[in-house]
Amino acid sequence: MKLYDSPFAPNPRRVRIFLAEKGLQIPTETVELGKMQHRTDEFRALNPREQTPVLVLDDGSALSESVAICRFIEELHPEPSLFGASPRERAFTEMWNRRMELGLLMTVQAVFRHLHPAMAQLEDQCAAWGEANKPRLLKELAGLDAELTNRPYVAGDQFTIADITALCAVDFMRPTRIPLPEELVHLKRWKDEVSARPSASA
Amino acid sequence: MKLYDSPFAPNPRRVRIFLAEKGLQIPTETVELGKMQHRTDEFRALNPREQTPVLVLDDGSALSESVAICRFIEELHPEPSLFGASPRERAFTEMWNRRMELGLLMTVQAVFRHLHPAMAQLEDQCAAWGEANKPRLLKELAGLDAELTNRPYVAGDQFTIADITALCAVDFMRPTRIPLPEELVHLKRWKDEVSARPSASA
Repeated sequence: MKLYDSPFAPNPRRVRIFLAEKGLQIPTETVELGKMQHRTDEFRALNPREQTPVLVLDDGSALSESVAICRFIEELHPEPSLFGASPRERAFTEMWNRRMELGLLMTVQAVFRHLHPAMAQLEDQCAAWGEANKPRLLKELAGLDAELTNRPYVAGDQFTIADITALCAVDFMRPTRIPLPEELVHLKRWKDEVSARPSASA
Repeated sequence: MKLYDSPFAPNPRRVRIFLAEKGLQIPTETVELGKMQHRTDEFRALNPREQTPVLVLDDGSALSESVAICRFIEELHPEPSLFGASPRERAFTEMWNRRMELGLLMTVQAVFRHLHPAMAQLEDQCAAWGEANKPRLLKELAGLDAELTNRPYVAGDQFTIADITALCAVDFMRPTRIPLPEELVHLKRWKDEVSARPSASA
Protein backbone atom coordinates (compact mmCIF):
# COMPACT_ATOMS: atom_id res chain seq x y z
CA MET A 1 0.00 0.00 0.00
CA LYS A 2 1.04 3.60 -0.55
CA LEU A 3 -0.47 6.75 0.92
CA TYR A 4 -0.65 10.01 -1.01
CA ASP A 5 -0.50 12.64 1.70
CA SER A 6 -0.41 16.44 1.93
CA PRO A 7 0.97 18.64 4.73
CA PHE A 8 -1.19 21.35 6.40
CA ALA A 9 -4.56 20.14 5.08
CA PRO A 10 -6.88 18.70 7.77
CA ASN A 11 -8.16 15.62 5.90
CA PRO A 12 -4.80 13.98 5.23
CA ARG A 13 -3.89 14.69 8.86
CA ARG A 14 -6.92 12.66 10.00
CA VAL A 15 -5.43 9.62 8.27
CA ARG A 16 -1.93 10.29 9.65
CA ILE A 17 -3.25 10.50 13.23
CA PHE A 18 -5.36 7.39 12.65
CA LEU A 19 -2.29 5.44 11.47
CA ALA A 20 -0.23 6.73 14.42
CA GLU A 21 -2.92 5.57 16.87
CA LYS A 22 -2.79 2.13 15.23
CA GLY A 23 1.02 2.10 15.38
CA LEU A 24 1.20 1.68 11.60
CA GLN A 25 3.55 3.13 9.03
CA ILE A 26 2.71 3.12 5.33
CA PRO A 27 5.02 4.26 2.53
CA THR A 28 3.99 7.81 1.71
CA GLU A 29 4.26 10.18 -1.22
CA THR A 30 3.76 13.88 -0.60
CA VAL A 31 1.36 15.81 -2.84
CA GLU A 32 1.90 19.55 -2.37
CA LEU A 33 -1.44 21.30 -2.81
CA GLY A 34 0.22 24.74 -2.93
CA LYS A 35 2.27 23.55 -5.92
CA MET A 36 -0.90 22.19 -7.62
CA GLN A 37 0.46 18.64 -7.52
CA HIS A 38 -3.14 17.40 -6.98
CA ARG A 39 -4.11 18.86 -10.35
CA THR A 40 -1.75 16.82 -12.52
CA ASP A 41 -3.06 14.14 -14.89
CA GLU A 42 -1.08 11.58 -12.91
CA PHE A 43 -2.83 12.44 -9.65
CA ARG A 44 -6.24 12.87 -11.28
CA ALA A 45 -5.96 9.26 -12.44
CA LEU A 46 -5.84 8.29 -8.75
CA ASN A 47 -8.62 10.62 -7.68
CA PRO A 48 -10.62 12.58 -10.27
CA ARG A 49 -11.84 14.82 -7.42
CA GLU A 50 -8.24 16.11 -7.04
CA GLN A 51 -8.25 15.56 -3.28
CA THR A 52 -5.79 14.00 -0.87
CA PRO A 53 -5.44 11.62 0.89
CA VAL A 54 -5.48 8.61 -1.44
CA LEU A 55 -4.50 5.08 -0.42
CA VAL A 56 -3.29 2.94 -3.31
CA LEU A 57 -3.88 -0.74 -2.51
CA ASP A 58 -1.57 -3.59 -3.44
CA ASP A 59 -3.78 -4.42 -6.45
CA GLY A 60 -3.28 -0.86 -7.73
CA SER A 61 -6.78 0.41 -7.02
CA ALA A 62 -6.98 3.89 -5.49
CA LEU A 63 -9.12 4.48 -2.40
CA SER A 64 -9.97 8.07 -1.54
CA GLU A 65 -12.14 9.78 1.11
CA SER A 66 -10.41 9.96 4.49
CA VAL A 67 -13.00 8.00 6.46
CA ALA A 68 -13.16 5.23 3.83
CA ILE A 69 -9.37 4.90 4.16
CA CYS A 70 -9.55 4.88 7.97
CA ARG A 71 -12.33 2.30 8.02
CA PHE A 72 -10.39 0.05 5.66
CA ILE A 73 -7.35 0.28 7.95
CA GLU A 74 -9.59 -0.48 10.95
CA GLU A 75 -10.81 -3.64 9.22
CA LEU A 76 -7.25 -4.80 8.55
CA HIS A 77 -5.99 -3.77 12.01
CA PRO A 78 -8.94 -3.83 14.44
CA GLU A 79 -6.94 -3.00 17.59
CA PRO A 80 -7.10 -0.52 19.18
CA SER A 81 -10.64 0.08 17.96
CA LEU A 82 -11.19 3.65 16.75
CA PHE A 83 -14.66 3.10 15.21
CA GLY A 84 -16.23 1.29 18.21
CA ALA A 85 -16.16 -2.34 19.29
CA SER A 86 -19.88 -3.30 19.05
CA PRO A 87 -22.70 -2.45 16.62
CA ARG A 88 -24.09 0.07 19.11
CA GLU A 89 -20.69 1.67 19.74
CA ARG A 90 -19.98 1.81 16.02
CA ALA A 91 -23.35 3.47 15.38
CA PHE A 92 -22.82 6.26 17.90
CA THR A 93 -19.16 6.70 16.94
CA GLU A 94 -20.27 7.19 13.34
CA MET A 95 -22.94 9.66 14.47
CA TRP A 96 -20.38 11.71 16.36
CA ASN A 97 -17.77 11.51 13.65
CA ARG A 98 -20.31 12.78 11.14
CA ARG A 99 -21.37 15.59 13.44
CA MET A 100 -17.72 16.60 13.81
CA GLU A 101 -17.25 16.38 10.04
CA LEU A 102 -20.38 17.98 8.69
CA GLY A 103 -20.81 20.42 11.54
CA LEU A 104 -17.30 21.38 12.62
CA LEU A 105 -14.68 20.44 10.04
CA MET A 106 -16.63 21.48 6.96
CA THR A 107 -17.55 24.75 8.66
CA VAL A 108 -13.97 25.76 9.46
CA GLN A 109 -12.91 24.59 6.00
CA ALA A 110 -15.60 26.81 4.43
CA VAL A 111 -14.23 29.84 6.29
CA PHE A 112 -10.68 29.00 5.22
CA ARG A 113 -11.43 28.14 1.61
CA HIS A 114 -13.70 31.05 0.88
CA LEU A 115 -11.93 33.83 2.81
CA HIS A 116 -8.20 33.06 3.03
CA PRO A 117 -6.25 35.05 0.42
CA ALA A 118 -3.91 32.09 -0.24
CA MET A 119 -6.88 29.99 -1.35
CA ALA A 120 -7.91 32.33 -4.16
CA GLN A 121 -5.74 30.37 -6.63
CA LEU A 122 -7.26 27.02 -5.56
CA GLU A 123 -10.97 27.79 -5.07
CA ASP A 124 -13.83 29.64 -6.70
CA GLN A 125 -14.19 31.69 -3.54
CA CYS A 126 -17.61 32.79 -2.31
CA ALA A 127 -16.82 35.32 0.42
CA ALA A 128 -20.45 35.55 1.57
CA TRP A 129 -20.39 31.84 2.34
CA GLY A 130 -17.10 32.14 4.20
CA GLU A 131 -18.58 34.89 6.37
CA ALA A 132 -21.83 32.94 6.89
CA ASN A 133 -19.81 30.07 8.33
CA LYS A 134 -18.09 32.12 11.05
CA PRO A 135 -21.13 32.28 13.37
CA ARG A 136 -22.01 28.67 12.49
CA LEU A 137 -18.52 27.62 13.58
CA LEU A 138 -18.85 29.41 16.93
CA LYS A 139 -22.21 27.74 17.50
CA GLU A 140 -20.73 24.31 16.70
CA LEU A 141 -17.84 24.92 19.10
CA ALA A 142 -20.22 25.94 21.90
CA GLY A 143 -22.31 22.84 21.27
CA LEU A 144 -19.24 20.60 21.44
CA ASP A 145 -18.11 22.33 24.65
CA ALA A 146 -21.50 21.51 26.22
CA GLU A 147 -21.21 17.87 25.14
CA LEU A 148 -17.74 17.58 26.68
CA THR A 149 -18.98 18.74 30.08
CA ASN A 150 -19.88 15.22 31.11
CA ARG A 151 -17.61 12.88 29.19
CA PRO A 152 -13.91 12.63 28.33
CA TYR A 153 -14.14 12.15 24.57
CA VAL A 154 -16.39 13.25 21.73
CA ALA A 155 -18.21 9.92 21.35
CA GLY A 156 -18.06 8.78 24.98
CA ASP A 157 -15.50 7.14 27.25
CA GLN A 158 -13.09 6.09 24.51
CA PHE A 159 -10.85 7.99 22.12
CA THR A 160 -12.27 7.41 18.61
CA ILE A 161 -12.13 8.71 15.05
CA ALA A 162 -14.60 11.41 16.16
CA ASP A 163 -11.84 12.90 18.35
CA ILE A 164 -9.43 12.78 15.44
CA THR A 165 -11.87 14.63 13.18
CA ALA A 166 -12.64 17.19 15.88
CA LEU A 167 -8.95 17.80 16.66
CA CYS A 168 -8.09 18.32 12.99
CA ALA A 169 -11.00 20.77 12.73
CA VAL A 170 -10.10 22.72 15.88
CA ASP A 171 -6.40 22.88 14.98
CA PHE A 172 -7.35 24.12 11.50
CA MET A 173 -8.84 27.21 13.15
CA ARG A 174 -5.28 28.54 13.55
CA PRO A 175 -4.51 29.01 9.82
CA THR A 176 -8.13 30.12 9.46
CA ARG A 177 -7.27 32.89 11.97
CA ILE A 178 -10.17 32.19 14.34
CA PRO A 179 -9.18 31.90 18.01
CA LEU A 180 -10.78 29.26 20.23
CA PRO A 181 -13.16 31.19 22.52
CA GLU A 182 -11.63 31.18 26.03
CA GLU A 183 -14.92 30.50 27.81
CA LEU A 184 -15.16 27.03 26.23
CA VAL A 185 -13.28 25.39 29.12
CA HIS A 186 -14.48 21.83 28.48
CA LEU A 187 -13.42 21.99 24.87
CA LYS A 188 -10.06 23.40 26.01
CA ARG A 189 -9.62 20.52 28.52
CA TRP A 190 -10.40 17.99 25.80
CA LYS A 191 -8.12 19.71 23.27
CA ASP A 192 -5.19 19.74 25.72
CA GLU A 193 -5.73 16.07 26.45
CA VAL A 194 -5.97 14.79 22.88
CA SER A 195 -3.15 17.11 21.78
CA ALA A 196 -0.87 15.45 24.37
CA ARG A 197 -1.24 12.06 22.67
CA PRO A 198 1.82 11.16 20.57
CA SER A 199 -0.42 10.77 17.50
CA ALA A 200 -1.31 14.48 17.54
CA SER A 201 2.10 15.39 16.12
CA ALA A 202 1.26 13.44 12.95
CA MET B 1 -37.04 0.81 17.87
CA LYS B 2 -38.82 3.85 16.50
CA LEU B 3 -37.95 6.00 13.50
CA TYR B 4 -38.59 9.75 13.40
CA ASP B 5 -39.13 10.45 9.73
CA SER B 6 -40.03 13.43 7.54
CA PRO B 7 -41.65 13.50 4.10
CA PHE B 8 -40.04 15.31 1.11
CA ALA B 9 -36.56 15.71 2.66
CA PRO B 10 -33.82 13.62 1.00
CA ASN B 11 -32.03 12.33 4.12
CA PRO B 12 -35.02 10.61 5.77
CA ARG B 13 -35.82 9.09 2.37
CA ARG B 14 -32.38 7.48 2.28
CA VAL B 15 -33.28 5.55 5.44
CA ARG B 16 -36.75 4.64 4.14
CA ILE B 17 -35.29 3.22 0.90
CA PHE B 18 -32.61 1.41 2.91
CA LEU B 19 -35.26 -0.23 5.12
CA ALA B 20 -37.35 -1.16 2.08
CA GLU B 21 -34.34 -2.84 0.42
CA LYS B 22 -33.85 -4.84 3.63
CA GLY B 23 -37.53 -5.74 3.75
CA LEU B 24 -37.87 -4.15 7.20
CA GLN B 25 -40.61 -2.09 8.77
CA ILE B 26 -40.01 0.01 11.87
CA PRO B 27 -42.67 1.93 13.78
CA THR B 28 -42.47 5.52 12.54
CA GLU B 29 -43.44 8.94 13.81
CA THR B 30 -43.69 11.78 11.30
CA VAL B 31 -41.90 15.05 12.04
CA GLU B 32 -43.21 17.77 9.71
CA LEU B 33 -40.35 20.15 8.95
CA GLY B 34 -42.70 22.69 7.36
CA LYS B 35 -44.61 22.85 10.64
CA MET B 36 -41.36 23.30 12.58
CA GLN B 37 -41.90 20.04 14.45
CA HIS B 38 -38.12 19.51 14.43
CA ARG B 39 -37.66 22.68 16.47
CA THR B 40 -39.66 21.63 19.53
CA ASP B 41 -37.95 20.96 22.86
CA GLU B 42 -39.22 17.38 22.64
CA PHE B 43 -37.51 16.75 19.31
CA ARG B 44 -34.38 18.68 20.26
CA ALA B 45 -33.95 16.26 23.17
CA LEU B 46 -33.63 13.49 20.56
CA ASN B 47 -31.35 15.45 18.24
CA PRO B 48 -29.97 18.84 19.30
CA ARG B 49 -29.09 19.45 15.62
CA GLU B 50 -32.85 19.56 14.84
CA GLN B 51 -32.50 17.11 11.95
CA THR B 52 -34.41 14.04 10.87
CA PRO B 53 -34.15 11.07 10.66
CA VAL B 54 -33.60 9.84 14.22
CA LEU B 55 -33.75 6.19 15.27
CA VAL B 56 -34.64 5.68 18.92
CA LEU B 57 -33.24 2.36 20.13
CA ASP B 58 -34.93 0.01 22.56
CA ASP B 59 -32.80 1.38 25.42
CA GLY B 60 -34.13 4.87 24.67
CA SER B 61 -30.93 6.29 23.17
CA ALA B 62 -31.38 8.40 20.04
CA LEU B 63 -29.23 7.72 16.98
CA SER B 64 -29.13 10.40 14.31
CA GLU B 65 -27.21 10.89 11.02
CA SER B 66 -28.72 8.88 8.16
CA VAL B 67 -25.65 6.79 7.37
CA ALA B 68 -25.08 5.92 11.05
CA ILE B 69 -28.68 4.67 11.16
CA CYS B 70 -28.28 2.68 7.93
CA ARG B 71 -25.00 1.12 9.08
CA PHE B 72 -26.57 0.10 12.40
CA ILE B 73 -29.44 -1.57 10.53
CA GLU B 74 -26.91 -3.30 8.23
CA GLU B 75 -25.15 -4.74 11.29
CA LEU B 76 -28.44 -6.09 12.68
CA HIS B 77 -29.67 -7.33 9.26
CA PRO B 78 -26.62 -8.02 7.06
CA GLU B 79 -28.56 -9.40 4.06
CA PRO B 80 -28.84 -8.17 1.40
CA SER B 81 -25.58 -6.28 1.92
CA LEU B 82 -25.86 -2.59 1.03
CA PHE B 83 -22.47 -1.50 2.39
CA GLY B 84 -20.38 -4.23 0.73
CA ALA B 85 -19.59 -7.80 1.74
CA SER B 86 -15.79 -7.68 2.20
CA PRO B 87 -13.35 -5.09 3.65
CA ARG B 88 -12.38 -4.03 0.14
CA GLU B 89 -16.00 -3.76 -1.04
CA ARG B 90 -16.94 -1.84 2.09
CA ALA B 91 -14.06 0.57 1.55
CA PHE B 92 -15.01 1.42 -2.02
CA THR B 93 -18.73 1.52 -1.22
CA GLU B 94 -17.98 4.06 1.50
CA MET B 95 -15.83 6.06 -0.90
CA TRP B 96 -18.64 6.21 -3.45
CA ASN B 97 -21.31 6.91 -0.88
CA ARG B 98 -19.26 9.82 0.43
CA ARG B 99 -18.68 11.16 -3.06
CA MET B 100 -22.43 11.00 -3.68
CA GLU B 101 -23.09 12.72 -0.35
CA LEU B 102 -20.43 15.40 -0.23
CA GLY B 103 -20.36 16.01 -3.97
CA LEU B 104 -23.92 15.49 -5.17
CA LEU B 105 -26.45 15.51 -2.32
CA MET B 106 -24.95 18.41 -0.38
CA THR B 107 -24.63 20.40 -3.60
CA VAL B 108 -28.29 20.04 -4.58
CA GLN B 109 -29.29 20.68 -0.97
CA ALA B 110 -27.22 23.89 -0.97
CA VAL B 111 -29.09 25.14 -4.06
CA PHE B 112 -32.44 24.25 -2.49
CA ARG B 113 -31.77 25.60 0.98
CA HIS B 114 -30.20 28.86 -0.08
CA LEU B 115 -32.39 29.76 -3.05
CA HIS B 116 -35.85 28.22 -2.61
CA PRO B 117 -38.34 30.82 -1.32
CA ALA B 118 -40.03 28.24 0.93
CA MET B 119 -36.75 27.72 2.80
CA ALA B 120 -36.43 31.34 3.90
CA GLN B 121 -38.25 30.56 7.14
CA LEU B 122 -36.01 27.57 7.90
CA GLU B 123 -32.54 28.73 6.87
CA ASP B 124 -30.21 31.71 7.09
CA GLN B 125 -30.13 31.82 3.33
CA CYS B 126 -26.95 32.81 1.48
CA ALA B 127 -28.09 33.29 -2.12
CA ALA B 128 -24.53 33.65 -3.44
CA TRP B 129 -23.75 30.16 -2.14
CA GLY B 130 -26.90 28.73 -3.67
CA GLU B 131 -25.92 30.17 -7.04
CA ALA B 132 -22.31 28.97 -6.66
CA ASN B 133 -23.58 25.43 -6.25
CA LYS B 134 -25.51 25.32 -9.53
CA PRO B 135 -22.45 24.88 -11.77
CA ARG B 136 -20.89 22.56 -9.17
CA LEU B 137 -24.00 20.38 -9.34
CA LEU B 138 -23.86 20.17 -13.13
CA LYS B 139 -20.18 19.20 -12.94
CA GLU B 140 -20.95 16.48 -10.38
CA LEU B 141 -23.76 15.10 -12.56
CA ALA B 142 -21.49 14.99 -15.61
CA GLY B 143 -18.82 13.21 -13.56
CA LEU B 144 -21.33 10.61 -12.36
CA ASP B 145 -22.60 10.11 -15.91
CA ALA B 146 -19.04 9.34 -17.03
CA GLU B 147 -18.60 6.84 -14.19
CA LEU B 148 -21.83 5.06 -15.12
CA THR B 149 -20.67 4.50 -18.70
CA ASN B 150 -18.99 1.25 -17.78
CA ARG B 151 -20.81 -0.15 -14.78
CA PRO B 152 -24.42 -0.70 -13.69
CA TYR B 153 -24.33 0.93 -10.25
CA VAL B 154 -22.53 3.81 -8.56
CA ALA B 155 -20.08 1.65 -6.59
CA GLY B 156 -19.77 -1.22 -9.08
CA ASP B 157 -21.77 -4.31 -9.99
CA GLN B 158 -24.06 -4.26 -6.96
CA PHE B 159 -26.79 -1.90 -5.79
CA THR B 160 -25.50 -0.23 -2.59
CA ILE B 161 -26.13 2.66 -0.25
CA ALA B 162 -24.22 4.83 -2.75
CA ASP B 163 -27.10 4.32 -5.24
CA ILE B 164 -29.61 5.25 -2.55
CA THR B 165 -27.76 8.48 -1.76
CA ALA B 166 -27.38 9.33 -5.44
CA LEU B 167 -31.06 8.64 -6.22
CA CYS B 168 -32.24 10.82 -3.31
CA ALA B 169 -29.94 13.58 -4.55
CA VAL B 170 -31.03 13.34 -8.19
CA ASP B 171 -34.73 13.18 -7.29
CA PHE B 172 -34.29 16.22 -5.05
CA MET B 173 -33.37 18.23 -8.15
CA ARG B 174 -37.11 18.35 -8.99
CA PRO B 175 -38.19 20.53 -6.02
CA THR B 176 -34.91 22.40 -6.52
CA ARG B 177 -36.18 23.18 -10.04
CA ILE B 178 -33.08 21.98 -11.87
CA PRO B 179 -33.75 19.59 -14.77
CA LEU B 180 -31.48 16.61 -15.36
CA PRO B 181 -29.44 17.49 -18.47
CA GLU B 182 -30.71 15.31 -21.35
CA GLU B 183 -27.27 14.52 -22.70
CA LEU B 184 -26.39 12.52 -19.56
CA VAL B 185 -27.69 9.28 -21.03
CA HIS B 186 -25.80 6.92 -18.71
CA LEU B 187 -27.10 8.72 -15.65
CA LYS B 188 -30.61 8.56 -17.15
CA ARG B 189 -30.26 4.79 -17.76
CA TRP B 190 -29.13 4.29 -14.13
CA LYS B 191 -31.89 6.57 -12.75
CA ASP B 192 -34.60 4.68 -14.67
CA GLU B 193 -33.24 1.39 -13.40
CA VAL B 194 -32.95 2.25 -9.72
CA SER B 195 -36.27 4.15 -9.83
CA ALA B 196 -37.98 0.94 -11.01
CA ARG B 197 -37.00 -0.89 -7.81
CA PRO B 198 -39.92 -1.17 -5.39
CA SER B 199 -37.84 0.59 -2.70
CA ALA B 200 -37.76 3.82 -4.72
CA SER B 201 -41.36 4.60 -3.80
CA ALA B 202 -40.35 4.85 -0.13
